[in-house]
Amino acid sequence: MKPSIPKGTRDFSPVEVAKRQYIIQKMRTHFEKFGFQPIETPSFENSETLMGKYGEEGDRLIFKILNSGNFFFNKNKIELPESINSLQTNSAETISVNELVELNKFTNNISEKALRYDLTVPFARYVVQHQNDIEFPFKRYQIQPVWRADRPQKGRFREFYQCDADVVGSTSLWQEVELVQLYDSVFTDLGLNGVTIKINNRKILSGIAEVIGASDKLIDFTVALDKLDKIGEDGVKKEMIEKGISETAIEKVQPLFNFTGSISEKITKLSVLLADSIEGMKGVEELQFICDNVTDLGLTSAILDLDVTLARGLNYYTGAIFEVAPPKAVSMGSIGGGGRYDDLTGIFGLKNMSGVGISFGLDRIYLVIEELGLFPETVTTTSKAIFLNFGQEETKYSMKAITELRKVGVKVELYPDNVKIAKQFQYAEKRGIHLAIIVGDDEMKNNQFSVKNLVSGEQQKVDFENLKKMLQ
Amino acid sequence: MKPSIPKGTRDFSPVEVAKRQYIIQKMRTHFEKFGFQPIETPSFENSETLMGKYGEEGDRLIFKILNSGNFFFNKNKIELPESINSLQTNSAETISVNELVELNKFTNNISEKALRYDLTVPFARYVVQHQNDIEFPFKRYQIQPVWRADRPQKGRFREFYQCDADVVGSTSLWQEVELVQLYDSVFTDLGLNGVTIKINNRKILSGIAEVIGASDKLIDFTVALDKLDKIGEDGVKKEMIEKGISETAIEKVQPLFNFTGSISEKITKLSVLLADSIEGMKGVEELQFICDNVTDLGLTSAILDLDVTLARGLNYYTGAIFEVAPPKAVSMGSIGGGGRYDDLTGIFGLKNMSGVGISFGLDRIYLVIEELGLFPETVTTTSKAIFLNFGQEETKYSMKAITELRKVGVKVELYPDNVKIAKQFQYAEKRGIHLAIIVGDDEMKNNQFSVKNLVSGEQQKVDFENLKKMLQ
Repeated sequence: MKPSIPKGTRDFSPVEVAKRQYIIQKMRTHFEKFGFQPIETPSFENSETLMGKYGEEGDRLIFKILNSGNFFFNKNKIELPESINSLQTNSAETISVNELVELNKFTNNISEKALRYDLTVPFARYVVQHQNDIEFPFKRYQIQPVWRADRPQKGRFREFYQCDADVVGSTSLWQEVELVQLYDSVFTDLGLNGVTIKINNRKILSGIAEVIGASDKLIDFTVALDKLDKIGEDGVKKEMIEKGISETAIEKVQPLFNFTGSISEKITKLSVLLADSIEGMKGVEELQFICDNVTDLGLTSAILDLDVTLARGLNYYTGAIFEVAPPKAVSMGSIGGGGRYDDLTGIFGLKNMSGVGISFGLDRIYLVIEELGLFPETVTTTSKAIFLNFGQEETKYSMKAITELRKVGVKVELYPDNVKIAKQFQYAEKRGIHLAIIVGDDEMKNNQFSVKNLVSGEQQKVDFENLKKMLQ
Repeated sequence: MKPSIPKGTRDFSPVEVAKRQYIIQKMRTHFEKFGFQPIETPSFENSETLMGKYGEEGDRLIFKILNSGNFFFNKNKIELPESINSLQTNSAETISVNELVELNKFTNNISEKALRYDLTVPFARYVVQHQNDIEFPFKRYQIQPVWRADRPQKGRFREFYQCDADVVGSTSLWQEVELVQLYDSVFTDLGLNGVTIKINNRKILSGIAEVIGASDKLIDFTVALDKLDKIGEDGVKKEMIEKGISETAIEKVQPLFNFTGSISEKITKLSVLLADSIEGMKGVEELQFICDNVTDLGLTSAILDLDVTLARGLNYYTGAIFEVAPPKAVSMGSIGGGGRYDDLTGIFGLKNMSGVGISFGLDRIYLVIEELGLFPETVTTTSKAIFLNFGQEETKYSMKAITELRKVGVKVELYPDNVKIAKQFQYAEKRGIHLAIIVGDDEMKNNQFSVKNLVSGEQQKVDFENLKKMLQ
């Protein structure tokens, strides 16, 4: 029986951990530079904290934890409704509401905790629970794993990290300006030049809905409009009509079909288009403030773009909406996203707390950096050199040097066993260690070390001071 | 309803995260300096990977994860044995074996995954699963949370971090030497001078058992001997006799009752005592090698001590046993421990892989550093300065400076809202930010910034270059 891990989960090898830590450390540095403070929350929360916060589909994807043995038996009897025994279904799709109710009763009885599904709900819970210890506005970042019982597929895992930076307790649009700068700052430092930070505003979308006279058709409208590149203006209009959007409505927003130009040109077009919508114009004003200030302050390598089709988490966001596309050389979905949500903590009883935040997609960022070959060679945990093992006396001599080298921070190791030297060389090469240190009678007599470069094959004898210089 | 978290779990505030990260980063640095490579494993494993590895008590303390909604219903019917419905117990202690078997069948049916209970079993699973990609000896470190359904109490949590460094695939005693040095290196760097690294050897304990002619009484013997300080020689002997150890046996190991002196004196005493035990003498030899070499190479601040009563994980370790006591100024249990276990991966079918490793107790180390006031003041994620908000024009001017400061790595933030200035000062103080930057008409006219030190109350006007110098 070969050991394995649950589907949708991953082991990370030393090289992978080093690269992930490289990204995470960069994020930490920039988050803190922008005044965000780290918090961490427990891996599991009380079920009632999580359930009902992610919609029906989300609830089903939450991993529930069985009450532990002890706890289980502390109740006099395990309550199992007879109806559970008679449950008979073939798939989630065919379960009746009654059955679902019975199942929920049952699982709630044997499970009172669940694994974190995202970092936003635990953050809201944290803010409400610790509100008396927090100074608002509270800028927090959080880098922790989350778990989702999604069907695993390429690039989608059941355990993955989320990296979130949010501000709660201020409606100032300067936050949005800073969050765009934060994206720019992180991606520039990671060498990912030319990411596109797309921005939109929920109020723009509501304004469009108002103008076309069909609030309920908004999602159909944006989904269709998003296909403009692929199916052309006629194709988009055909789809809109099929979805029940009137020709008059489509006529009203004709400029959206040729929505190109600079950000300020786009904003001008939107001002004309949404002139009759108070909410729409509020959205235009917000977008203008953010874009103007971002442009004035300048981005280092990222490109800001206004994308009126951007509608991620439409039910959730109330103001700005962000999404980051990787550099054009890479074909991959968004590597980050976020937005403003006006009532973050309302679900836990603390009203009027506006929040705005962004998220970084660690797994995808990793893949993009890998694909572009942008991980620095220095991102490794491998030792600088390995001292080969020629026997007890030689090793004592080596260990004195190793001890001193480590004191000055050099990553160095000893081959622990006195085995055939060919095997030791092979080990060093397979481990990717570039320098092998050889200590024999000669070296011991002369207080020296032979250093063999395993890449070039060159070998030289040096004293300890020079060895230290070579390795530092 | 006030939101809360499950008992035994914790939220970590920004200050706490910063301090924990400080310790973790130091560990990472030293682990890598000693040639250890990081790996990470999934938070949950297949139940069969974990169950049966930690004894009966351990199995009960493993958190099981309920099969997710989808998965649950993909089976045609949920099998619930009738006997489960009739289970009736008051506490874990009174459950019968039959009931336990039924319960296990039941829980296995609804749960196939479980949260990691420690890092050692997942490490063994990792080694076996990836054996073809690993070069042995494999030195790995792992810093990740584990979960145990223990009854929570002061200092014992249901979610806590383990920080382990292990080598697998070599029996060389140089590993033990290096692990003692690693402890010294980490604790010295954390400012924890004067920790005691206690060392013992399972073979010494087996030798003592052989000498007293009672292998089954070994634990009773060491437990009693360990109380020497508290209850004196007569008390210890009385307890031993009560436990069924004969007076003749006790007579044979009389030197253990006055087991003081230097390490080499202790080793000499053990050599005499265990002369007739082949295994015991092997233990003495191993101890001597480790202690001699550690002493020759020298420790920076830690104290090495030979403690024959040390028996942690007796069923588990086969060679060296380590335990670290905090500096004497602090009253706390061990802050680290480890040892050698000859058949680490045998449970997963890979034989003859000796392992040796040590563990660092993050939570206790944190408490010790806190108690001794050894966290450096620089361990903080708090911003160096906050720019107060006096309105739109002032903020635009401030944001230009903030953007430039962040480019050179300065942690700095903007108060986002234009509210009463007293409120902004109060915010800065409560956040622990020492400098407030004030921008008014005068400052903007003269290209200056007023810097107010919130600790001393001093205020001065500086240009941008000087501001940068002050904050870098």
